[in-house]
Amino acid sequence: MSALDPIRTDPDKYKVIFENERVRVLDYRDTPGAKTQAHQHPNSVLLMLSDFQRRLTIGDDVREVTVTAGQALWSPAQVHVGENIGTADSHVIFVELKD
Amino acid sequence: MSALDPIRTDPDKYKVIFENERVRVLDYRDTPGAKTQAHQHPNSVLLMLSDFQRRLTIGDDVREVTVTAGQALWSPAQVHVGENIGTADSHVIFVELKD
Repeated sequence: MSALDPIRTDPDKYKVIFENERVRVLDYRDTPGAKTQAHQHPNSVLLMLSDFQRRLTIGDDVREVTVTAGQALWSPAQVHVGENIGTADSHVIFVELKD
Repeated sequence: MSALDPIRTDPDKYKVIFENERVRVLDYRDTPGAKTQAHQHPNSVLLMLSDFQRRLTIGDDVREVTVTAGQALWSPAQVHVGENIGTADSHVIFVELKD
């Protein structure tokens, strides 16, 4: 397991809910103001299960995103820091692809 | 698109909510008593968003399954018929892998 695996960097927020040779599925939850350590995701499908606002820092690039429960999106492999900048809890399922 | 694509066989139940070259994400909903046409899924991750009971008919094999909201599971490529045999609506996200 990489030192940047989110299960290692932020075990209070990320839980493995399924894994086989093709995918790993993570359940992510946090609360307003929470901030992760820097961590790495492979190519993943994200499924938003709550409405929330988030700041993502990817190297020198800082993005603020607002998402809606029910949205699905693609997240290419990356190292980032995530921060809950809204007033609602975050709940996201990550389906990580083992390329 | 295959004639057995669930978007073609059961467009009242399956909606595409995301697609790229690696994955297609489907939102599935039905109500008690609903039954699909025979349709085909590739290797997929299923994420259950409600508690429900289901009968799956895969060729001569008939299985009854009970699932819980929050469960994630792997569904290998298959052709099947699904039927909601419980008293609750079904809501499932399919993350289909384009192998």
